[in-house]
Formats: sequence, C-alpha cells, structure tokens
Amino acid sequence: MNDHPGRIAVLTVGDELLAGEVADSNLGTIGKALSAMGMSVWEHATVRDDVQAISTAIKDFLETNDAVLITGGLGPTSDDVTREAVADATGKRLESRKALETMIRGFFESMDREMPEENLKQALIPCGARAIPPAGGTAPGFIVEYGGKLIAALPGVPREMERMLRSDVKGELGSRFSSGEFTVTLRVNTFGAGESDVAQELHDLIGGCAVRYGFLALNGPIVVKLTATAGSREEAERLAADEREKVVGRLGPLVYGFGDETMEEVMGRLLLERGLSIAVAESLTAGMVCSRIANVPGSSDYFRGGVVTYSRESKEEVLGLPKELLREGAVNQGVARAMAESVRRMFSADLGVATTGLAGPGRDGEKKTVGTLCLALADGKDTGSWERMLPGDRELVRSIATMAAMNVIRLYVLHGDQVVAD
Amino acid sequence: MNDHPGRIAVLTVGDELLAGEVADSNLGTIGKALSAMGMSVWEHATVRDDVQAISTAIKDFLETNDAVLITGGLGPTSDDVTREAVADATGKRLESRKALETMIRGFFESMDREMPEENLKQALIPCGARAIPPAGGTAPGFIVEYGGKLIAALPGVPREMERMLRSDVKGELGSRFSSGEFTVTLRVNTFGAGESDVAQELHDLIGGCAVRYGFLALNGPIVVKLTATAGSREEAERLAADEREKVVGRLGPLVYGFGDETMEEVMGRLLLERGLSIAVAESLTAGMVCSRIANVPGSSDYFRGGVVTYSRESKEEVLGLPKELLREGAVNQGVARAMAESVRRMFSADLGVATTGLAGPGRDGEKKTVGTLCLALADGKDTGSWERMLPGDRELVRSIATMAAMNVIRLYVLHGDQVVAD
Repeated sequence: MNDHPGRIAVLTVGDELLAGEVADSNLGTIGKALSAMGMSVWEHATVRDDVQAISTAIKDFLETNDAVLITGGLGPTSDDVTREAVADATGKRLESRKALETMIRGFFESMDREMPEENLKQALIPCGARAIPPAGGTAPGFIVEYGGKLIAALPGVPREMERMLRSDVKGELGSRFSSGEFTVTLRVNTFGAGESDVAQELHDLIGGCAVRYGFLALNGPIVVKLTATAGSREEAERLAADEREKVVGRLGPLVYGFGDETMEEVMGRLLLERGLSIAVAESLTAGMVCSRIANVPGSSDYFRGGVVTYSRESKEEVLGLPKELLREGAVNQGVARAMAESVRRMFSADLGVATTGLAGPGRDGEKKTVGTLCLALADGKDTGSWERMLPGDRELVRSIATMAAMNVIRLYVLHGDQVVAD
Repeated sequence: MNDHPGRIAVLTVGDELLAGEVADSNLGTIGKALSAMGMSVWEHATVRDDVQAISTAIKDFLETNDAVLITGGLGPTSDDVTREAVADATGKRLESRKALETMIRGFFESMDREMPEENLKQALIPCGARAIPPAGGTAPGFIVEYGGKLIAALPGVPREMERMLRSDVKGELGSRFSSGEFTVTLRVNTFGAGESDVAQELHDLIGGCAVRYGFLALNGPIVVKLTATAGSREEAERLAADEREKVVGRLGPLVYGFGDETMEEVMGRLLLERGLSIAVAESLTAGMVCSRIANVPGSSDYFRGGVVTYSRESKEEVLGLPKELLREGAVNQGVARAMAESVRRMFSADLGVATTGLAGPGRDGEKKTVGTLCLALADGKDTGSWERMLPGDRELVRSIATMAAMNVIRLYVLHGDQVVAD
C-alpha cells in the first residue's frame, strides 16, 4: 500500500486520432474505471505514430506521474511502434516471447488462415515485462516496471483495451496506488435555470474545502458535479451525499434527477407511480417529445402517443382547432392550450401536453421572435400555459423545448397533480 | 505563406474529460478541419481545470509548435480558468472588454433574464488579444500572439467551438501556416447494405494508390470516405471526385448523398422538387421520423405532420384501424399499410409512410422477434410494404428504422413516383 493517491497518465497513440478520422473512447473508459477505484487520470496526451514522440511523452509523464497507461500502436503494421518506444524510453531491449508467438499463431490457425510474417513482431515485448495475452485480436499487451514506476501498454481497439484493463491492469494499479485517497463524484441534474444562476444559488457552498463543485451545461440541463475525496470510499461517499443534500435543499424543484437519470426516466417513473397516462401534441418540437418519452423501455404503460401538427392546416384538420384561434398565428399560449386539450381527448389520456414555437432560422410568417416557446398542459380540469424565450440555434431551441415539455409534467406531479402555470 | 506545414497543438481542458464523464469531440472536429486545409494537429493533451496545469501545457506546446488551440474553461464558473492560464503563460494582464460585456448582457436581456455577476468574468481577455464574439452562448473566445506564435482559446461546447473555428481561427491559421500538401476527403453516404457488403462491392477499387478508402458505420448508414493528397487543393479534389464517380457507379441507389448531407435533407429536396407532401404514422419509431424530417429548415413546405400511435388503442381510436386487423398483433405489414393509408388521408398529404415493429428489450405480447421492422408507403393509388430484421439494441433499431422510413420515400421519387415494394 502506498500513502499517496497514484498519479496516472494516459497516453493515446495514433495519427488517425489527431486527424479526426477516429474518435478516442479509451480515455473515457480508463477515467471511469480508475475513478471508481479511488484513483484518477491526472493528465492525458495524444501523440503521433512515431517512436521519438511516444518515447518523449512517456519520459515526460514519468517525471510527474506514478504510472503511464498507453493505448494503441501494438498492431502488426509498420506504423505500430509503441513497443519500440517503450524500449527506447526505458532503455530495455525487446525480446520475443515464445508463449505469445504460439498464441498469435493459434489465432490464425483457429480461422484456417496463414499467419502473415508481420504478426511475429507482436510477440516482442521489453525484457522483464509481464505479458498480457491477446484479448480477442492478435495484440498482446504488457506491463513493465521502471524506476519504481509502472508502464502499461494496451491495444487501441476499445474492446481489447477494456478487457486487459479489467483483467490485468486494474489489479496491478489497485494494489500499488489505491489507498489513501478515494474520490467519489455525484451528479445533481437540474433544469429550468442557466449555469450561472445555478452557480449563484450555490455561491456560498462552493469553495468549502471538503467537496469540489463543477458545472456541466448539456443542451438545457445544468449538471452540478460534487466531488469528494477522503481516506475511504465510504467517507468520500458520505461527504458527497451530505453536500448533495444541501444542493437539493437550495435548488428545490430545479433538481429533476441524479447521476445518469434522464428527464424522460424521471417523468415516466412519476407518471407510473400516479397511474397517469399522457399524450403529446407537437409543433415546434415535431416528434422529439414523443421520441424521447418512448426512449424509455416500458414507456407504453403510460405513453399513449401523440400528434405532430407541423402545418397550420393539420392543427385545424387533425386537432380540430378553430380557424379563428389560428388567425393571430400558431405561436401563442392559446393555441398551445387548445392543442394540449385536444390531444388529451383524442388519445383518451389523463394528461395532454403541447409545444408550439419558433425554432428559426425563418419566422414562417409568425409575429413572434425566433426562440419563442409556448407550452401547455391539460388534465381535463385545468389547463396551464407558459411562454419562454430560448437561446441557441434551431437544434438547441427544439432540444430545450423538449426537456421543458417533459419538465412541466414532472412539476405537475410534484405539485400534487395540479397545473401550476405562470 | 510559410514554407513549412505549421505545427499545431490542441489542448483540451476539463476534469470531466479525464474522469471519463464526458467524451471529447473537439479534437476530432479540429483535426478534420485542419487536414482539409493542408495543416495537421501535431500533438494533443487533456489537462485538469487548473491554472498551473493549463499554463504549463501551453508553455510546453509553444516550445515545439507554431500554434496552440485551447478548448474549454471559458465558462462563468469558478472552475473555468483558461483565461487566467493564458495570462499566466504569456505574462499578459487580463482586461475587461466593454464590447464583450455588452454582448453578454445582451444575451441575458434577449431572454428577459438578469445577468448573474459571475458572467462578467467572461468579458476578460488577455491584453492585446483579438476577441471572438460569443457564438450561441455567453463565452467569447480569443486569439493572442505571443513570441511570433499563436494561442487561440475557444469554448468547450462543441457547437460554439466549431463556429469560432470556422469564423475566425481557420482563416488566421490558414494565412500563416497552410502550404505544401493538401488533403481532401470526400464522403459517399449509403444506406441499405452492411459495411462488408459495401466494401466487397468496391473490392477491386480499394488499394489503388491515388485515393485511400475508409469505411464508417453510423447507426445504419455506411459512409465511404475517399481521401486524396496532392500538391494543390484542386488536384486533390479532382483525384477524390474522380474516384467518387466510380464509387457511385458501383453502388447505384444505395448512395443517398455526399459529404454532410443527411437522409432527411435529400428526401426533403426530392419531395420539394416533385411538389409532394408527406405525413407519417409511427409506432416503433415513436416520433423519430417526424423529428428528423422537421430538423430541416423549410421542411414545413412538404411535411404536413404525423401521429405517434404507440398504444394499440390509439391505432384504433386515432388512426381508425379495425379491431380485426390488430387481432394478430400490431407488428405486421397489414397494420403498417393501414397506418400509412390512414395518416395520408388524415393529413391530406400526397404520401403516407408508417413504421411498426419491436425495438425490445421486451416483446410487449407480440409474436414477432425483437428487431422486426414493418414499413409501408401509400400514395393514394398504391400501397407498398416491407419487412426487415434490424440488428442492435433498442436505440439502434429505432434509429435504423427511422432512416429506412425516409429511404423508402427517396426511392419512391427515384422510381418515378412509384411504389416498388418487396
């Protein structure tokens, strides 16, 4: 056991990543796996398929980190040079391992194919390194110790990388570095206020030394991240959970969920608990609300369906809205209310929700400003409506409007099955 | 013009990236944009939200690179410290720019909200820097020269980052560093066959030395990437375009578009050209088809709207399907045909298209296998239907089904306004 929280660096190798041809997912996989074990990735770099570039990065990282995890460059072709780079950085010779050679030959034999000569170089690893057998492909990985520090080289193929991380690397890192400090991050998901408003509301909580605050703006929702570090996982969890309680107390109904929970899941669970069904009439969002609600497996228990009345004619013909109502345009709270009431009846649902608005770029002959959202909710007794100005382009406006439509249903249930509008 | 191909480094800032909570897409966007301009990203690093870490990385990169592009850390909260880090690395003071402050205030005013005090710090940029106005949010970017080299700081939000890259950064970099080799990548977008089938079809074209082939599987579509490198942009474009012609000749109607063209754009353009309108009835896809069609600005010219009949009752009540038809379940070609015909009439559209099927994980009492898609298209004279087995999980099944629904409309127009079903 070590008494400091191992600093681990990740080095991603590949020209194709720098050229934007392939997106790297290995950093995320490693980051998540280490966080869960009370370790964290301290820094990360992406370098070219070049022995000197990789070797220099390894040496730089070893100066300030306890371990370097390398992904990529272990394939059979000439641009795969991670083996040589580790040898160069550590001054160790490469040696061929018979056992690895046999496994690589076996891979080809199992597919009745002859092994190309190139693949032989995959059996080379630095002297003294511990080999990790291929995990699905032909690339072995390896772990080598150098000056009391650790270098692990893993294939770039995400599936193979992940298997080796789980089977060999996590254990090795855990036994050396996991101790001392455990870090836990909890997420509080909010909707209905901007990033700076949420931060303002928590102003005096931020900066306390036990828990670190972070904010993430995700096309509408603002996520508050609470990161606690402590001597045990339990203690870190308790610190973060206590802080979360304070945050929830401050933000109240702005909070719709925690962790990976989505608005559609939370809304769905509330509807299911109350035994309420729902139908949706969409103009501005044109199917996005329905689609998001139906994302949740089992949503057919509360989701009846909906209509997308994108044209003015369809608002009259399909939803039966009176011509006079539409004379002043289709973007106003009156139209939204009539849509919500009509779709509720049409689908024999308990609740009807409706969106209309202007996503832009054009105004389609409407008088309202681009970014206007009109929302309505009808429950058969009452109908409430809201009007908001949303920021951003067409896509963002529609995406925030979709969240807002699901959010009014959540708030309806929170208010004891009551429509509480502006 | 410079006689060497500018070395450009990308620095990505954010704890959430190292912890694996958010995947970075900015490196890819920048890599692609620079490749297209005859430049390339030479190295990349991800660092914590920490002034010293960011400042050190900037200084390291400036030693061996001509420019550093930073993404992230320009928000209003306390963990956004890129401004301070650039000031630290360059020894420049931060100054508040009145014009930026006005824009940030304007952002909040346009939404009738008061500006939180925190946002004021977003108007701070290093002395002598060129400001880039906010691109959709409240975060300005900036470009600063230092020792003959360039530092650009851009927001981490991908959409805002991309806009500033296009509007200000590419021009600045291009005028200084672009020369030598130009690389052009053209994309041919196909739908309806698997990756290995498409590759097989092009088998003898692949491996020619002038143009490099790549394949990208994108939740249904298979994209063929053709990359050519030459001494001038024109020559590289000609090489890639010649190859593209060969590919289109081979793949025929599998090809629905090029470059960034989406299926909904292509389908929309064809409908507009033929003066046809469309309505959609969705069960399996539950709003995704409508939502994708309405993604296209101006789609109201041909898109009438649709219904999401997620429950069996709504198929009867809203679409008027006879009870007997639904006795054998809701997933069959007969139901899809009746849905397409009914929605066409309901919305007075020229064409009606319908999806029904099983996305899983459960079978909802249906007899069919999870992954089954039934599609139908009605034009008032004929109705055609298709049945397919789709691979993947709930999300992938719905996403491919959505593409397939738009694709039958595209093929209808290609076949001279004729329903050509299985």
